[in-house]
Amino acid sequence: MSNDLQRDEARYKAQGFGNEMGIAGRVGLLIVDFVNGFADPAAFGGGNIPQAIARTTTLLAAARRLGWKIAHTRIVFADDGADANIFSLKVPTMLGLTEGNPASAIVPELAPAPGEYVVRKTVPSAFSGTPLAAWYVAHGVQTVVVAGCVTSGCVRASVLDAMQAGFRPIVVSDCVGDRAIGPHEANLFDMAQKCGDVLELDTLLSRIPNQ
Amino acid sequence: MSNDLQRDEARYKAQGFGNEMGIAGRVGLLIVDFVNGFADPAAFGGGNIPQAIARTTTLLAAARRLGWKIAHTRIVFADDGADANIFSLKVPTMLGLTEGNPASAIVPELAPAPGEYVVRKTVPSAFSGTPLAAWYVAHGVQTVVVAGCVTSGCVRASVLDAMQAGFRPIVVSDCVGDRAIGPHEANLFDMAQKCGDVLELDTLLSRIPNQ
Amino acid sequence: MSNDLQRDEARYKAQGFGNEMGIAGRVGLLIVDFVNGFADPAAFGGGNIPQAIARTTTLLAAARRLGWKIAHTRIVFADDGADANIFSLKVPTMLGLTEGNPASAIVPELAPAPGEYVVRKTVPSAFSGTPLAAWYVAHGVQTVVVAGCVTSGCVRASVLDAMQAGFRPIVVSDCVGDRAIGPHEANLFDMAQKCGDVLELDTLLSRIPNQ
Amino acid sequence: MSNDLQRDEARYKAQGFGNEMGIAGRVGLLIVDFVNGFADPAAFGGGNIPQAIARTTTLLAAARRLGWKIAHTRIVFADDGADANIFSLKVPTMLGLTEGNPASAIVPELAPAPGEYVVRKTVPSAFSGTPLAAWYVAHGVQTVVVAGCVTSGCVRASVLDAMQAGFRPIVVSDCVGDRAIGPHEANLFDMAQKCGDVLELDTLLSRIPNQ
Repeated sequence: MSNDLQRDEARYKAQGFGNEMGIAGRVGLLIVDFVNGFADPAAFGGGNIPQAIARTTTLLAAARRLGWKIAHTRIVFADDGADANIFSLKVPTMLGLTEGNPASAIVPELAPAPGEYVVRKTVPSAFSGTPLAAWYVAHGVQTVVVAGCVTSGCVRASVLDAMQAGFRPIVVSDCVGDRAIGPHEANLFDMAQKCGDVLELDTLLSRIPNQ
Repeated sequence: MSNDLQRDEARYKAQGFGNEMGIAGRVGLLIVDFVNGFADPAAFGGGNIPQAIARTTTLLAAARRLGWKIAHTRIVFADDGADANIFSLKVPTMLGLTEGNPASAIVPELAPAPGEYVVRKTVPSAFSGTPLAAWYVAHGVQTVVVAGCVTSGCVRASVLDAMQAGFRPIVVSDCVGDRAIGPHEANLFDMAQKCGDVLELDTLLSRIPNQ
Repeated sequence: MSNDLQRDEARYKAQGFGNEMGIAGRVGLLIVDFVNGFADPAAFGGGNIPQAIARTTTLLAAARRLGWKIAHTRIVFADDGADANIFSLKVPTMLGLTEGNPASAIVPELAPAPGEYVVRKTVPSAFSGTPLAAWYVAHGVQTVVVAGCVTSGCVRASVLDAMQAGFRPIVVSDCVGDRAIGPHEANLFDMAQKCGDVLELDTLLSRIPNQ
Repeated sequence: MSNDLQRDEARYKAQGFGNEMGIAGRVGLLIVDFVNGFADPAAFGGGNIPQAIARTTTLLAAARRLGWKIAHTRIVFADDGADANIFSLKVPTMLGLTEGNPASAIVPELAPAPGEYVVRKTVPSAFSGTPLAAWYVAHGVQTVVVAGCVTSGCVRASVLDAMQAGFRPIVVSDCVGDRAIGPHEANLFDMAQKCGDVLELDTLLSRIPNQ
């Protein structure tokens, strides 16, 4: 952590931010946008995303073993662009992520198993304009563990919304990645202060009782 | 802008981010959490918040002259803490912002005029758990100009949600402030790439026809 | 039940509607708009609302004894009408329900106790534009027991939204009321087919283990 | 209208309900769930649904001529049932409406044209858990004309949510249908009192200037 971040953290702590929340209720896993197009630096990828994907294979295996409710997200726009929106006005290249484009398919090493929920979305947050919150509620989930990319975009938006929807988010710091490291670190800082707990995978798993 | 941000910006541009959107439909103004407690470094304030408040007096006067629909937000929790939530679990000091606490009152220089909408909220986003989006829709607003604090918290959350709700957000860079400058700048970068246009007040006003 | 309703019910049953869901997770109580103005036939009341209020005193006492999370709603518009909306365009008299108007105060026999959540709203649904869903989620509630008025308006809207938000709604048929009996019965039918379980209070309580 | 409904209407009118709202801003068309399975009495259909579909062909042609923004909804659950929810717990037969099942396909006479938005949903409301509200906002729509089925279910839920989201709903009474006439009429009454304007197609079209 840089000197600047340390100084900022001291100020936030003095004002009461950054309290650790812990785990409550049933745990859900949310894997955000680990699709081929975000694994590819020539498309939307780069930075530390490949390492985050590799690490998430361990997280996903643990989640399956522990019986967590598991959701994966993909950005998918309509073939005819009928659902173009403000996000695609800001980032027009997103419109290419159509259902049949391999770039919108989840990376093979994290392919969803039957019964895992694949959420199609057209904005950064996994919760905005999707039934995801209702799905977790119906299954008694109160704590949402988050992996995915990019930290400064769809991960941040999903973690924020998870918190605003009443869930306790846990961001797994080595299972989230970004195309650029500055925004990655800046957003981990913001989320730790104001949205959720930020933990390394080993720390998280050490706190989960083997159910 | 630092060298790091310049390098990041080049990468984002190559991938199609950061397109400028412009203005459409009727314009609304959203002033986020410019309340006494966030103007006070001993409470939740600090950094460049005082300068942003001073600058917003000019923006608010222009918005009134131009007939924009104007909304102000305050964080307000119940006196008995009955509506404590995950945000207040993360930042317990927020629970002190009750209806009668002067810290939750809008700063005098930006006091709402009759007919301006005062939104009470208990999470960062002005749109989450409030009727704000519906209010803008009912009045034909499509573009939401955002001032307020803090850039890395309630402003970022509100700008993200404005975009996800179908509005075009414009962040007025000299009318938003934060208790720490690192997060302020990092979040202006993220918002400009993925959520909305980021403009200085003078630039914004030069683009608005005097109606 | 009329012959017509019996015939309709047979058709719905043949198509797979009206399955009973039962109770899951923690239980929450939602009392919708039992305020003075809806208890008064000269304002928004009439029909079987007084009987429903009387019966709800028993439900509320049971909920407190059982430790359910309890929420009450009130319709409250701003004193200056700044938050007028499409609902108040349809029913302009609603705008008179301001914070200080006794008509918007919860009836004395159901006055909220400390720690019970009082939700202010400006539309029929208790969930739309409010933090109520997030509040139930944060407290682990999965089943929402609903009392209140009017059956064909704010109750129906809240039960629908509870279901859509992932909660299991239980409508307590003798604790909901309406200004006119036709809509009351028609909406109980619709809710039983498509939204939630509909039970009399005695039946509901007989199924709750004394915790 | 029956004597009972006439008496109820008088009571509602005395209390200020049922005000006519008219048209504002750009108009959108919403066609709810006119899919093969709801056109088939052996599946989810019956009643006056076929007549409503036939009449909606005229409405759709007019909407295309007038340049309205057009959306169609379908209920679609995942092939593996991973997104089963509380609605499908209440009506388990809904889970059969998967992407490839002809029962979930829009009826041929109302097949969407390119650029019309096809919204997939898993609950009654077209707005709940979908990006539909954001889509209308981004296109400047303020008035939503509603056709579809069934009046007492997905139509009612969508009209309610349109109103709560800040849009002015207009229910076209001869373009909505239900498997049973009692609930059809009861819900037209409720919507006219509390949610939106209810007009016959000819009346609606006579009020639209040929743009």
